[in-house]
Amino acid sequence: MTTTTETSRHETRIEADPNLPTVRIIREFDAPVELVYRARVDPELVAQWMGPRSIDMDIEKWDLRTGGEYRYTALRGGEEVAHFYGSVHRVWENRKIVQTFGFEEMPEAVSLDTLELHDLGDGRTRLEIVSVVYDMESRDAMLASGMEVGVNEGYQALDELLARQAGTGA
Amino acid sequence: MTTTTETSRHETRIEADPNLPTVRIIREFDAPVELVYRARVDPELVAQWMGPRSIDMDIEKWDLRTGGEYRYTALRGGEEVAHFYGSVHRVWENRKIVQTFGFEEMPEAVSLDTLELHDLGDGRTRLEIVSVVYDMESRDAMLASGMEVGVNEGYQALDELLARQAGTGA
Repeated sequence: MTTTTETSRHETRIEADPNLPTVRIIREFDAPVELVYRARVDPELVAQWMGPRSIDMDIEKWDLRTGGEYRYTALRGGEEVAHFYGSVHRVWENRKIVQTFGFEEMPEAVSLDTLELHDLGDGRTRLEIVSVVYDMESRDAMLASGMEVGVNEGYQALDELLARQAGTGA
Repeated sequence: MTTTTETSRHETRIEADPNLPTVRIIREFDAPVELVYRARVDPELVAQWMGPRSIDMDIEKWDLRTGGEYRYTALRGGEEVAHFYGSVHRVWENRKIVQTFGFEEMPEAVSLDTLELHDLGDGRTRLEIVSVVYDMESRDAMLASGMEVGVNEGYQALDELLARQAGTGA
């Protein structure tokens, strides 16, 4: 199954492998690898774009180094709606992050996520994330959770953040 | 595929799912859950049993808490042969550990491992570990790596450690 959604001028592809319990997300950005990477590992930047627009992130920990961890609360209108966390298996600066992902509201649910950044030249970057879980039912539940809203709206906000950084030369 | 190997008086089962990129290890121990758990999280105890008999562990870090990490070197006759590491997604004391597993010699290889301890009563415990990787080829490579030597010899040494602890009332 492939879900393709128009977001700003780039599409986000969310693909489910027919034979493996994986989800692949593919998205391009009009910004160099270093800026996309920094927007993913700097907690002050992350808080400006990640997740649905209706959600604010209260980041308790965001230590994206090999052996690190992260933890944050999602808030809607000041109310806590979910608590996310994970551990960081390994980081290759400006290239790749391998981490786990979970949330307190379903403590048994966990995925192993690999994020890779590919330099497309001309200051453009392709982000690919592959998540694996333990069985097809969990993978299908992940897809049915409405994750595409947070993914699409988050990447639109990231487009805007990256454009502002380019505008200011930051 | 199921590999069953006689080790002391308990068998270790190593099972590969035909349809998922997972490996399941199942082993019973004649010791209560609390002692098996402690032998897995206390680095001084871990160094006494984990891995093949021919290998010594030089543990640099063994922080088995939610958000923790571990890192160790495997030595044979004083020579470094491999460097293992991972991050700890979540720990439920005396019950469950979810962590990643990797090694420097194949930096792209990673698995997500869930270890669970089940109380069988009468001071006996069943350990179940399920590891998932990103594809069937990686799973088959894991099985072909000779992992069963370390698993079987390690659990035999753990049997002996647990018996010594019972003998001393520790």
